[in-house]
Amino acid sequence: MNGAQALIRTLTGGGVDICFANPGTSEMHFVAALDAVPRMRGVLTLFEGVATGAADGYARMAGRPAATLLHLGPGLGNGLANLHNARRAGVPVVNVVGDHATFHKQYDAPLESDIDAIAGAVSGWVRRSTSAADVGPDAAAAIAAASGPPGQVATLILPADVSWSERDAAPGECPEPPHPLGRGTLDADTLEAAAKALGSGEPCLVLVGGEATREPGLVAAARIAAATGAKLLAETFPTRFERGAGVPAVDRLGYLADMAIHQLSGIKHLVLAGARPPVTFFGYPNKPSDLVPEGCQVYPVAAREGAALAALEALADLVAPGTEAPLAPAARPALPTGPLTVETAAAVVGALLPEGAIVVDEAITSGLGLPGATAGAPRHDWLTLTGGSIGYGLPAATGAAVACPDRPVWCLQADGSAMYTISALWTHAREGLDITTVIYNNSAYAILRMELMQVGASESGERARALFDLGGPRLDFVQIASGMGVPAVRASTAEELADALRRAQAEPGPHLIEAIVPSLVP
Amino acid sequence: MNGAQALIRTLTGGGVDICFANPGTSEMHFVAALDAVPRMRGVLTLFEGVATGAADGYARMAGRPAATLLHLGPGLGNGLANLHNARRAGVPVVNVVGDHATFHKQYDAPLESDIDAIAGAVSGWVRRSTSAADVGPDAAAAIAAASGPPGQVATLILPADVSWSERDAAPGECPEPPHPLGRGTLDADTLEAAAKALGSGEPCLVLVGGEATREPGLVAAARIAAATGAKLLAETFPTRFERGAGVPAVDRLGYLADMAIHQLSGIKHLVLAGARPPVTFFGYPNKPSDLVPEGCQVYPVAAREGAALAALEALADLVAPGTEAPLAPAARPALPTGPLTVETAAAVVGALLPEGAIVVDEAITSGLGLPGATAGAPRHDWLTLTGGSIGYGLPAATGAAVACPDRPVWCLQADGSAMYTISALWTHAREGLDITTVIYNNSAYAILRMELMQVGASESGERARALFDLGGPRLDFVQIASGMGVPAVRASTAEELADALRRAQAEPGPHLIEAIVPSLVP
Repeated sequence: MNGAQALIRTLTGGGVDICFANPGTSEMHFVAALDAVPRMRGVLTLFEGVATGAADGYARMAGRPAATLLHLGPGLGNGLANLHNARRAGVPVVNVVGDHATFHKQYDAPLESDIDAIAGAVSGWVRRSTSAADVGPDAAAAIAAASGPPGQVATLILPADVSWSERDAAPGECPEPPHPLGRGTLDADTLEAAAKALGSGEPCLVLVGGEATREPGLVAAARIAAATGAKLLAETFPTRFERGAGVPAVDRLGYLADMAIHQLSGIKHLVLAGARPPVTFFGYPNKPSDLVPEGCQVYPVAAREGAALAALEALADLVAPGTEAPLAPAARPALPTGPLTVETAAAVVGALLPEGAIVVDEAITSGLGLPGATAGAPRHDWLTLTGGSIGYGLPAATGAAVACPDRPVWCLQADGSAMYTISALWTHAREGLDITTVIYNNSAYAILRMELMQVGASESGERARALFDLGGPRLDFVQIASGMGVPAVRASTAEELADALRRAQAEPGPHLIEAIVPSLVP
Repeated sequence: MNGAQALIRTLTGGGVDICFANPGTSEMHFVAALDAVPRMRGVLTLFEGVATGAADGYARMAGRPAATLLHLGPGLGNGLANLHNARRAGVPVVNVVGDHATFHKQYDAPLESDIDAIAGAVSGWVRRSTSAADVGPDAAAAIAAASGPPGQVATLILPADVSWSERDAAPGECPEPPHPLGRGTLDADTLEAAAKALGSGEPCLVLVGGEATREPGLVAAARIAAATGAKLLAETFPTRFERGAGVPAVDRLGYLADMAIHQLSGIKHLVLAGARPPVTFFGYPNKPSDLVPEGCQVYPVAAREGAALAALEALADLVAPGTEAPLAPAARPALPTGPLTVETAAAVVGALLPEGAIVVDEAITSGLGLPGATAGAPRHDWLTLTGGSIGYGLPAATGAAVACPDRPVWCLQADGSAMYTISALWTHAREGLDITTVIYNNSAYAILRMELMQVGASESGERARALFDLGGPRLDFVQIASGMGVPAVRASTAEELADALRRAQAEPGPHLIEAIVPSLVP
């Protein structure tokens, strides 16, 4: 057994049996070891950002980490943006980065770079294995560190000769997996203060995030809201948001600062369960970054990760004994007709979203109608761009589909952000994943048109606006997807979109629908 | 004038008038300022790795830096791989990274990350502007730092509010641009020792790199070789290699360790001019990393950057007075017929490469026949993958074409590496760049098949080999390119490739030819 085999055996022993890989020379022994340890499934991606985004999507749905396999510092760099999203989402990832052989590093060969520094920016845990004997224990420690709680990116740097050496290589012993919903301890004083505030008759808001955007947390929070009259919101970009008919219907805090300020306006008591104190996404001239209204008292009953569900259930026992959570009734919009718009496209999705769907949402401005249109659809999971780093949707859909092969994945994806990691489509085809991708093609970085107004850059003109224009030339996603092996069609009307979605559902495997929509922002 | 306008005015005042941009919200004022300073040309890319690779290709051909515009830590991460290549090539890049407003950073908003740490891994110089008054001087310092010598990546981090503030913003004063070929001082003792070794009759090798792979350096080196009988080689992956009829014909040190060991075998004296001591690209079991033969004396007559040309000319004056450099005669291969192979495809390129072409070479295993087939073609520049980080070709071609709008750019590109930054094709179309891209589609990461053998991973089997297979599904680059607005055709025979190249040459603007070739490595 060599170091690479010890690594893979440790990973599979610890429940990590998927590796999203984009290997290079320094990772060859890891790749070779795949044949020695058939329990590990290697999923090839054509770009490291697809591998890391897939690991994020996988972890959100599987509740346990996948491994990545990246090539040296540049490969890690390519994977950084989606590792950032995973870090912000608090999901576990065992991020394996190959490095030059230990004896080779001194020569500063062309691909030498400071892997540790780059890894540190996105990882909660970084270790460099220095011998084959260390690899097993190091991999076990990586799994434990990744799994948390809170979940985090654990980066294991693996020099090539540590991989190929056979000296004392052996699998490491893996710890028990952590309780999936954390086991942080509760602070009785904060809970009591929150309970008192909720009973005060003053305007209260319960903001849920992290694990509390899954059904049990939402049920507890909805009971609290129903019993006390408090408002209930979920954080802006939940890691995994359970919703649809039979689940409490919970709105999200707005992305736009003005919307969020409006939602929080007048609140005197803010209860945070698994959510952080709300702040704007960006800093703007003449707008506050801190969204907590002046004079509002904050009650952090549970940190972002850890005990949010337990805290909400304890709070519900205090303030809502006997109160049932109101649940969203089954309700779908009627199928619209006529030209596609952001609104009609959302209604079509709401009318047809299948039971048990996993929705990966990177639709950005074209997705503004989706939450309302799908609130009463059959129950589903909604994954969002938690870290704000675009190029997340197609890769995350890859990982979600690998984690849940029996559930349909709908990837609702804006055009501009799709292009960052477009090669994920090839992996959709390669693995025959049941992913239906809708690309909202509005030929613009429409969100930037909106942000340009938000930051008050009023001196801008045509040359500035040209940098948000994706229309010259217009991207043809039907051709792009076909070129990567994903069957694709174009839809310009609501009827065409509905037909295309029905056909995609009827046939297993990946499909892409290019939905031509006008930009929401002129 | 606000900070962003001061920045752009400083850049254009310092000769930096191209910005390869992929902006986000924190960069909106920079974007808006493009209308206030029309001398700055913004070139939109759909992915940051395209922007940074374009800045590299631009600098190699223009001899001065372009600016980039990247969005926060994740955008910098996306650009890291090609900044690595630029760093290794010693080319100047003014790398502008937007950040959150200074007052916003404390809130740890979703897109917050450690930009400084990530930037440090690829930059020779990093500075964070802290006020609008500082931006002008900081930008001037960035240009000076980038320009060198040696050229390097200078990263300027620009908080959003520093960009929009008008307090005391003013353009900075730019230094004189440095002498394009450096002005390092020479070490007379090393020169004399090298001259003595070259006259000893023992086996000598002159290895040139950096600035010395351009015509003047090659001429001086060829004179030395002709007068003394020394072997002459260029480093493996030159930044900019001038070659073709009328220029001294110089082979490159091999990428494969065994090839390089063979080329260096028996050498007793190694003269380094602009090149570093030769090492293998990767460490391998049972192969030396250090390629300098045992007992061989090394004479570093000029560091990698700086005085390589001056050193070679001084050395030529010492050992080759009156000797003329032998120049490559004009010679092209005959146009072959029949199925495309790596050899016939190379012959077609050699037969048709136009005068003054810029060749961007990321053909990897499919390009092994190119150097021989093009040695006597009309003179041209050859840009290579200096840092070894793939996904370089299509972006670098973008920058080279922007730098030299009157010269044809031929981008000779492998299939697997093309997919890392494939969206560069859209910028080729958007800007109407005169780039002819040949994608060698062998449906494999063939280089990894080779490396798997090199590292002795003999236990590998089908599951390992599947990770090098790009054939399921086969990428269709004609559709992918068409979908991004680049006219494309497929060639399976030498005649089809020749026809397609002729047609592409006859029509300005971008073209793509998918050349179906068998993999060189089974």
